[in-house]
Amino acid sequence: MRECDEFFRLPELAHLSAQRRRCALEQLEQTGSYLQTAEEILIGAKLAWRNHARCVGRKHWRSLKLLDARRVRSARDLAEVCWQHLHMAANNGAIQSMITVGPPRQPDGREFRIVSPQIIRYAGYRNGDGTVTGDAANVELTEFAMKLGWRGAGTPFDILPLLISTPDEPVRWFDIPPELAREVELEHPEFEWFAGLGLRWHALPAVSDMNLEIGGMTYPFAPFNGWYLGAEIGARNLSDTNRYNMLPLIAEMMCLDTRAERNLWRDQALVELNRAVLHSFRKAGVYIVDHHTVAKQFCDHVEREEAAGRACPTDWSWINPPISSGLTPTFHRYYDPPDMDIRPNFVRRDFRVGMGL
Amino acid sequence: MRECDEFFRLPELAHLSAQRRRCALEQLEQTGSYLQTAEEILIGAKLAWRNHARCVGRKHWRSLKLLDARRVRSARDLAEVCWQHLHMAANNGAIQSMITVGPPRQPDGREFRIVSPQIIRYAGYRNGDGTVTGDAANVELTEFAMKLGWRGAGTPFDILPLLISTPDEPVRWFDIPPELAREVELEHPEFEWFAGLGLRWHALPAVSDMNLEIGGMTYPFAPFNGWYLGAEIGARNLSDTNRYNMLPLIAEMMCLDTRAERNLWRDQALVELNRAVLHSFRKAGVYIVDHHTVAKQFCDHVEREEAAGRACPTDWSWINPPISSGLTPTFHRYYDPPDMDIRPNFVRRDFRVGMGL
Repeated sequence: MRECDEFFRLPELAHLSAQRRRCALEQLEQTGSYLQTAEEILIGAKLAWRNHARCVGRKHWRSLKLLDARRVRSARDLAEVCWQHLHMAANNGAIQSMITVGPPRQPDGREFRIVSPQIIRYAGYRNGDGTVTGDAANVELTEFAMKLGWRGAGTPFDILPLLISTPDEPVRWFDIPPELAREVELEHPEFEWFAGLGLRWHALPAVSDMNLEIGGMTYPFAPFNGWYLGAEIGARNLSDTNRYNMLPLIAEMMCLDTRAERNLWRDQALVELNRAVLHSFRKAGVYIVDHHTVAKQFCDHVEREEAAGRACPTDWSWINPPISSGLTPTFHRYYDPPDMDIRPNFVRRDFRVGMGL
Repeated sequence: MRECDEFFRLPELAHLSAQRRRCALEQLEQTGSYLQTAEEILIGAKLAWRNHARCVGRKHWRSLKLLDARRVRSARDLAEVCWQHLHMAANNGAIQSMITVGPPRQPDGREFRIVSPQIIRYAGYRNGDGTVTGDAANVELTEFAMKLGWRGAGTPFDILPLLISTPDEPVRWFDIPPELAREVELEHPEFEWFAGLGLRWHALPAVSDMNLEIGGMTYPFAPFNGWYLGAEIGARNLSDTNRYNMLPLIAEMMCLDTRAERNLWRDQALVELNRAVLHSFRKAGVYIVDHHTVAKQFCDHVEREEAAGRACPTDWSWINPPISSGLTPTFHRYYDPPDMDIRPNFVRRDFRVGMGL
């Protein structure tokens, strides 16, 4: 009730009548839920983005577009909506920030949701010798999909199916139409051998394991996307030792002296991997941002928010990049404390919940 | 009073008698001060190190050595003690962690202290065109020293005099004996032109602008040193745009394409500068640690502290390096919250206080 009341009193909703607020509160009190307008949801989703302390891309919060899928009920139809989302967001490389909002959590607690942490994820297969083929972060998810009957080709870059959970069906999986799961093959601006590594990454980061919370309502089915920050791919997904762990191989190909950490061979290989990511996305015409540029944009955003008299709750450890953070302006300043309780907001849920794990 | 009582009840002081605690409390209550034993100060300083949430080198807290200078009263004699500290800590390159403790803050609030933030700092001279020769972080300190009559040669690496403030004298300055201010000239393991840049850095980081707080007593004169983390020099002092800002020149010498941030020329130059720092210190036989190694050591330390049943208050944003943080194990975990109020501890003071600014 408090969240609903506070939501309708936000300055961004000042154009709505007091009557609307009273009506929503009344409906919420009587039924445990209320029907928000598409406008309220779009404003709420934009504010959730603006409020999210861990996002460095918030400068663009005003540009979010909404795909309203609240009337869609079956897993299959929800998958179709996700395909529409992928198509519209991809926008032929000029990526459009978008959110799809499905049915809210029901008053009885049952939910519509995507089990996968992102719409597009690569499978991870545990090998007999303890190694993993593919993305080690997704081993559990892969095994869950296989238990449901899905089978991948067994390459390091098999795209997992979209897993959808609804109140009235068992979890279902849907292969993502290949033309909608655009990928970029990675090459390096100077190293010819780099393309031979067979590395690639998908063009669109579409987070699907966060609840959208607006005005006392929770939307577990709320996948949203921006565009990639190069370092997410180059300094985490492909380099983390518990993900693709590519730096030892890249360093070997670069003929670096890997005998001692103090030679900083990891750091050298890391920079070249990140250069390859930025170069390849740009060459493919897929929008991506580097960590220097996004940091400047974020500092602009913080200043704009200050000028507007608003706090900008920020988690320093999340908005600074995992590579060369000292070179970015975000490193050298303090922020409003990261208030994760502020609403509207995006709230992460544990994907294992959806697997009964 | 509370801090004094809590100090003597710490497990590390359990071998002292209850009589000693009562005696200290009584003396503190009656005179506003009390005389700590050298053993109490050494234990206190070790615990201050162990408690300090912003230090990534805490694994070595047990190895601290004490130079007890509490009876020294004149600025000249305190400077002599600092020279002794520099000599003992340098230890011919095998750097020894040390702290010198001078007279405590007097009950009337007057203090003995070092004005400079570290014993060894490079001057920064403001030029007519708005640029700075030397370390731009030390422009105010340099102008203060010049007001007192000091004159530097005007090079980018002039070592500032040690500035000491005592209750009964005006601030005095003392040139650091050249043989005690050891420096390392920087060269690169592969780039021959690198040595021609004329870069150098001093061997010993000896912080002198933090109060040591132990058991209700404050020691403003408490310079302490460990050894350098390479990234402090390579990814901050020499690379920050408001310090030596060397990356544009290094990138130019490397013939990098500096037209766009997305080429990551800053990142490439940064890695090579850091390789030069680590290589040169090692070649000169001066102990230094790289960010990969220190991060592993810190994670060991946190585990050891956990095993000992102790909290390890830690500030994530300070203990992660400004270069390639995602490659270090310190990046991928959470810590006990950074409790800056825990005592004993080191507490930073603003150096401008000592200049009447």
